Amino acid sequence: MNLRIPGPTPLPDEVLQASGKQMVDHRGPEFKAMFDRITSGLKEMFQTKNDVLILSSSGTGSMEAAIANTLSPGDRVLAVSIGEFGERFAAIATAFGANVTKLNFAMGTHATPEGVREALVKDPSYKAVLITHNETSTGITNDLGPIAAVVKGEFNKLFLVDGISSVGSIECKTDEWKLDVVLSGSQKGWMAAPGLAFVAMSPTAWEANKTSKMPKYYFDLAKAKISADAKETPWTPAMSVFYALDKGVEILKREGYQNVYKRHADLSARTRNGLKALGLKMVATEDKYASNTVTAVYLPEGIEDGALRKHIQSKYQVVLAGGRGALTGKVFRIGHLGYVTAKDIDECIEAVRGSLIDLGVKLPVNIK
Amino acid sequence: MNLRIPGPTPLPDEVLQASGKQMVDHRGPEFKAMFDRITSGLKEMFQTKNDVLILSSSGTGSMEAAIANTLSPGDRVLAVSIGEFGERFAAIATAFGANVTKLNFAMGTHATPEGVREALVKDPSYKAVLITHNETSTGITNDLGPIAAVVKGEFNKLFLVDGISSVGSIECKTDEWKLDVVLSGSQKGWMAAPGLAFVAMSPTAWEANKTSKMPKYYFDLAKAKISADAKETPWTPAMSVFYALDKGVEILKREGYQNVYKRHADLSARTRNGLKALGLKMVATEDKYASNTVTAVYLPEGIEDGALRKHIQSKYQVVLAGGRGALTGKVFRIGHLGYVTAKDIDECIEAVRGSLIDLGVKLPVNIK
Repeated sequence: MNLRIPGPTPLPDEVLQASGKQMVDHRGPEFKAMFDRITSGLKEMFQTKNDVLILSSSGTGSMEAAIANTLSPGDRVLAVSIGEFGERFAAIATAFGANVTKLNFAMGTHATPEGVREALVKDPSYKAVLITHNETSTGITNDLGPIAAVVKGEFNKLFLVDGISSVGSIECKTDEWKLDVVLSGSQKGWMAAPGLAFVAMSPTAWEANKTSKMPKYYFDLAKAKISADAKETPWTPAMSVFYALDKGVEILKREGYQNVYKRHADLSARTRNGLKALGLKMVATEDKYASNTVTAVYLPEGIEDGALRKHIQSKYQVVLAGGRGALTGKVFRIGHLGYVTAKDIDECIEAVRGSLIDLGVKLPVNIK
Repeated sequence: MNLRIPGPTPLPDEVLQASGKQMVDHRGPEFKAMFDRITSGLKEMFQTKNDVLILSSSGTGSMEAAIANTLSPGDRVLAVSIGEFGERFAAIATAFGANVTKLNFAMGTHATPEGVREALVKDPSYKAVLITHNETSTGITNDLGPIAAVVKGEFNKLFLVDGISSVGSIECKTDEWKLDVVLSGSQKGWMAAPGLAFVAMSPTAWEANKTSKMPKYYFDLAKAKISADAKETPWTPAMSVFYALDKGVEILKREGYQNVYKRHADLSARTRNGLKALGLKMVATEDKYASNTVTAVYLPEGIEDGALRKHIQSKYQVVLAGGRGALTGKVFRIGHLGYVTAKDIDECIEAVRGSLIDLGVKLPVNIK
């Protein structure tokens, strides 16, 4: 099966073998050594010298942790959104009592520094800005550096970044860009199974944590920090995912982080080029902002999402993701992150070609 | 290594193999079939016809879910506590804004129906009662049936039960006792790795959920219920732990639930008898309430917790747990839950005997 969804991703054999290792004491020396290795690998990939904490949850848990640990009910929050995961970040802040204003950019586009600046000029009362680095629903990556220059450099706001489907695959310069909180999840580019989420915290984020009044317990990062300093977790960790991640981080380091970024960029371009040759239209209106980890593609007219995905899976053993939110039923999505090669992409594109023909779609004349 | 801590537990080979299976689509048919099998197995073990939801978190996450999904800030809560995990349940309710009164029973004893009745008579304003079924820090199991008869039968309060280290190993009659919320965790008796937690919800608990105002998102059980009805989870699930649990539940069913309970009762008695023969004193003052999943034992005079645990691990390859909270440094604990046999217990007791002799403890005259 060619699992081409944006997480969970297919795992290398050595990661699968690691996942099946016997349990050890989560307060014992073996775990502490592993915790240390993983944390140091995460910090390299997050490009930060500050804390990176590990939570036993999905990425959404880390989004809740980011908000509940830095904000208080009533705090004014600007939630920049370019899709479903931007909406989710805003919804979590709202659920925990923040006073959220949404800044939405049009479907298929990215957030602009100008747009963010305008919103921050208009209302100086914001305490924090939320943003999605890579929007998995539309396949678009925001250009974070220039936006961070506005949020941090010009307005010095607390800046919380959902990097769940970017960090580990797409470069995120956490310290250089002065990002306060950056998130990721084990099932994305990390070549590991789902079940762990990561939270990078700047000194400014820890300052905000001191006065944050939103309720928290399981996701209490101050507790996680005390435990992390002792190389463990406050609650029993998802041990087999730690084993997988330990191996995944090792593989990423072996490849070299810059090579990892380049591989994702190359395979993303390969995916889009293949799809465009079939006459398909990407959700991303500009190639420059197209995501290196996931591509969202409009379905050809007359083709139902369910029919395509069912057919391609049963006939070609390729698993695609459907659309989310406003794009449900209108697009399909291809994940190209983590353990993925050009061969996986070529087989996927070939399967899309075959399926479209099987389903009666007229492809461009130069395609058979 | 003989891992004798109260979770994570050693896993059978077939569970470890399952943990290393390749990822699948968490919204696809294979996952849905597995989700269905697991949920139906959980319901049998929880002895409930109502919903049992699966969260990707440790057991502590499920404690937060129980509280945040049924209560509102300011609600009066009676938190029955016989140890550290009772304290944790109370602390979570307090963190989320409940108005908590603690009902503590003396160290080494269990909660009594009379004590609970007295507290509920004294103050009729309580909305909910929290209790720990099996207290992992002291090795004591509360006799839930008679207490439930008071809380539900006489006072009709919302009754939230932390069964994290009991359900799956010690019988818990969720429906018969009219328990509203019952929790458990995959790394306890379930022969699976840590990373998943379970929440059984009665119709009364769902009624309370409708008016609950505590903030929640990742642990929002209404969202989990909508997804569970479609045989999936709202957020990406800890897939490899699902694989492990699927196999663990299969093994438990194969053994037969009543046999599982009996095995735990037998091995618990075997543990206590072995320790008593060495002249050691249990924290549990009455055998009748001693836990079938974990035993807490006072250290002999002059023996340091760290020294004993380090020695027994390096010389005998047995891993014991230390004390928690008020018992830190005063006790050691032996886990006997999940995949555990008489041989494991005998080797553990023999290693304790050898270690105490090595460390210069004078054992009873009939012990060599």
